[in-house]
Amino acid sequence: MYYIGIDLGGTNISAGIVDENGNILVKKETPTMNGRTAEDILDDMAELAKALIKELQIEVSDIESIGIGMPGTMDKQKGISIYANNLNFRNVNVIDEMRKRIDLPCYIENDANCAAIGENVCGIAYGSKNLIYITIGTGVGAGIIINGKVFDGSFGGGGEAGHMVIVAEGEECTCGRKGCWEAYASASALRREGRIAAAKYPNSKIYDLVDGNIKLIDAKTVFDAYDLGDEIALKIIDKYIKYLAIGLVNLVNIFQPEAIIIGGGVCAQGDKVIEPLIKILNERVYGGELKTKICVATLGNDAGVVGAAMLGRINREEI
Amino acid sequence: MYYIGIDLGGTNISAGIVDENGNILVKKETPTMNGRTAEDILDDMAELAKALIKELQIEVSDIESIGIGMPGTMDKQKGISIYANNLNFRNVNVIDEMRKRIDLPCYIENDANCAAIGENVCGIAYGSKNLIYITIGTGVGAGIIINGKVFDGSFGGGGEAGHMVIVAEGEECTCGRKGCWEAYASASALRREGRIAAAKYPNSKIYDLVDGNIKLIDAKTVFDAYDLGDEIALKIIDKYIKYLAIGLVNLVNIFQPEAIIIGGGVCAQGDKVIEPLIKILNERVYGGELKTKICVATLGNDAGVVGAAMLGRINREEI
Repeated sequence: MYYIGIDLGGTNISAGIVDENGNILVKKETPTMNGRTAEDILDDMAELAKALIKELQIEVSDIESIGIGMPGTMDKQKGISIYANNLNFRNVNVIDEMRKRIDLPCYIENDANCAAIGENVCGIAYGSKNLIYITIGTGVGAGIIINGKVFDGSFGGGGEAGHMVIVAEGEECTCGRKGCWEAYASASALRREGRIAAAKYPNSKIYDLVDGNIKLIDAKTVFDAYDLGDEIALKIIDKYIKYLAIGLVNLVNIFQPEAIIIGGGVCAQGDKVIEPLIKILNERVYGGELKTKICVATLGNDAGVVGAAMLGRINREEI
Repeated sequence: MYYIGIDLGGTNISAGIVDENGNILVKKETPTMNGRTAEDILDDMAELAKALIKELQIEVSDIESIGIGMPGTMDKQKGISIYANNLNFRNVNVIDEMRKRIDLPCYIENDANCAAIGENVCGIAYGSKNLIYITIGTGVGAGIIINGKVFDGSFGGGGEAGHMVIVAEGEECTCGRKGCWEAYASASALRREGRIAAAKYPNSKIYDLVDGNIKLIDAKTVFDAYDLGDEIALKIIDKYIKYLAIGLVNLVNIFQPEAIIIGGGVCAQGDKVIEPLIKILNERVYGGELKTKICVATLGNDAGVVGAAMLGRINREEI
């Protein structure tokens, strides 16, 4: 039996047909072209699904279900995307709308949770009972799996580990609080620090790399300057990793999961980030022994597609 | 069927016989007299259990099991107390030792988890699927229940929410990190702030209440001065509640449980603490709506005994 997984992001819609074990058999992508109506985006998602079925030379009846991973708040039972600011979705019944376009059982889930499921089903955290997937991008998102199932609290809005204050009265966060982990550990935070430093130190490589056009600096610019041995970048990255570690130690102390998986753009930096991170965690976790595996996501962008596809398998297993 | 629950603390050993619904039928207490050997303390626990059985005029065979709530790290499967610094226990097989003294199935569990179970079985969080019990005393402990079961991570050492850093590079914590929630929200933290303030402001009521003997100041002294309208105490309590709230908002954002229950000495202050706390949480939780019930423990010290007793019932239900 086959499963369709769709990863609906602000930039791209990725979709794939996945087998029982989470292997992607065929995959397609189309730009989201944000700003369009939900109907247009839903049309594209259905078209992608149909194109995948055709490419694999199977029938709609060979597909068990469609799973959709997406950002924002949602009512998973009813299939409603309540609010997704990156998509201009407001109270859209995604499940009903998809079924109008392609008549298959449909599930929706938070995108970070889908990535966590993906890594749990056939990625680096294969078979882990308890794991946390941290996605580092514009924000810091978390997908939490407890006892093999997505955990998002009693009202479906939990898992907001990025909005855990680690510096009381610290940097402003987009959520309205001050000092959230996200305000220190996101790629946006690294970009902010890079821009501040470049303005202050025009001799730094960070400044050079963008020819003084500070607005072009992003998180990767800081890592690139770091790779060139720039001292300012070194200090920024050290501080960044320190704050990233504070939140991770907090999560280890609270959850002591089998694995914490780091995904998102920053994970492309690999051991440069993970090695110092593990060193700090080893020194800092409560009880003095880090039993949790800290690792980089292995499925990359595919985790979202695989996890979304597996929503159908997980739901079937529960029956 | 009856269950025996024993709450083994650094100061007292409390024990009770509890019915299927968590009602305490008979209860006894004896001082722990800390510093004694584990054997002596185990003897007292068994004697307490036998005395309770006698008082209720039942037989050992009428008892389903004995549950013991205690502090420290433990291997619950093997029944071993690995290390409990308040008790001088080191690698004591509590289950084997208890069975030598009274031949009944025996379970051990972390004391904060027992209190969480107690409040879940027959207290303020009756029937909640997801809840967190926070005990505020010398430290800040947490008992986490997810999907109706104690959650303590993959290696039995999770739930250390008190050791979540909320002020990077902040106050020293007993765990070796800086800025843990415990270093701001425990009764010890309040005592510390009370003593610092009294030394600085000898005109304050905090100073008066102990006749200038600053070492006599504890958390309650600060609350007493607050009740007398002392401005210094007012500032300390405001700040204390603010930090208490930061950790609680973090937990709501991550877990979004049905209830967070505040236990320990500070909960005796009731609405004085809870009302401003709820006000802050309403303003600060992610998504702008506090769905989690924030309340004071209703079973008081009995929660530990009831929860420990119910370990047997919970384990039986799992079978």
